[in-house]
Amino acid sequence: MVRFEVRTHSRTGFVDITSEVVEAVGESGVRSGIALVYCPHTTAGITINENADPDVVNDLEMKSTKLIERDDTDFTHAEGNSDSHLKSSLFGASETLIVEAGAPMLGTWQGVYLAEFDGPRTRSVFVKVVAG
Amino acid sequence: MVRFEVRTHSRTGFVDITSEVVEAVGESGVRSGIALVYCPHTTAGITINENADPDVVNDLEMKSTKLIERDDTDFTHAEGNSDSHLKSSLFGASETLIVEAGAPMLGTWQGVYLAEFDGPRTRSVFVKVVAG
Amino acid sequence: MVRFEVRTHSRTGFVDITSEVVEAVGESGVRSGIALVYCPHTTAGITINENADPDVVNDLEMKSTKLIERDDTDFTHAEGNSDSHLKSSLFGASETLIVEAGAPMLGTWQGVYLAEFDGPRTRSVFVKVVAG
Repeated sequence: MVRFEVRTHSRTGFVDITSEVVEAVGESGVRSGIALVYCPHTTAGITINENADPDVVNDLEMKSTKLIERDDTDFTHAEGNSDSHLKSSLFGASETLIVEAGAPMLGTWQGVYLAEFDGPRTRSVFVKVVAG
Repeated sequence: MVRFEVRTHSRTGFVDITSEVVEAVGESGVRSGIALVYCPHTTAGITINENADPDVVNDLEMKSTKLIERDDTDFTHAEGNSDSHLKSSLFGASETLIVEAGAPMLGTWQGVYLAEFDGPRTRSVFVKVVAG
Repeated sequence: MVRFEVRTHSRTGFVDITSEVVEAVGESGVRSGIALVYCPHTTAGITINENADPDVVNDLEMKSTKLIERDDTDFTHAEGNSDSHLKSSLFGASETLIVEAGAPMLGTWQGVYLAEFDGPRTRSVFVKVVAG
């Protein structure tokens, strides 16, 4: 298993971790199999989306925050980050990728993102590759 | 593959199944690999979120139900549980965990939950562990 | 790895790909393990939901589009499909299935769907099976 850290710089935002994931898969030495990219935090997640126009992930952030606002007065959790926890469950804690020829087989426009929902913080990402 | 049953007690709610998942991974005898925790139902799901303050999952339930209300008059499915089906797809039918040293490698605050969206019912959960 | 194409016929909609997935798993020759069903596009996804009453997936489409409307004037991405990108991240790019006796172990009412959010297009689906 490979572990790396990601520094986030705002309360919410998407950080492209594709190159770190590609490197972790390469380090595993596995040529064919699957790679699990896993976030061990409950107010962040992993998602796959467009790697070209940064407006796309900015729109993901804007619209998800409009739907799941921070200050719903019905929230009872005292830390004021229930919005972050719900986003974490909906975007999801992990993504699984196909590995062929020693690299993740992403679509042309796909990048892998650490989705921060309660930053800024330093986050960990785990990558586990299984041959098959 | 290990299968266990979960009894839910209300229409919607999150049941902590972490100890059952840890036990299933242990039974597999696999020391290193990945574990797929899978829900074979279309009005429930599996999610990962905070294991400490129960207000967190209560807030997940409250806010997801506020967004996806049961009685949208545009729903056409006659069973009155289209909200449950949509929540199932958005929270997701499964979670995949990293296994190291014979146990799931969860973050400090992470628990695994059976998410009930159309209970109370008895639900099945499947756990499949693959070495690697 | 098996790859197949899916033709979609409207901007949004769910196409049942269960039989193609079952066939791909069979072709792999793997009797026991897991199968990753992966969508290499950023405005589509893979989801699991009811296979019986088509009103269910129609309601998923209706309600998700009501929540994430196409024409939010705060969207900045110039292609006019930020709604599609957000749905792709929330429904998710893949689903992982348990394989036993050479076939995916789906629940009675579960089917696997290609979720189209910016069609009509021809989409690719990848299926990777890992033994274990």
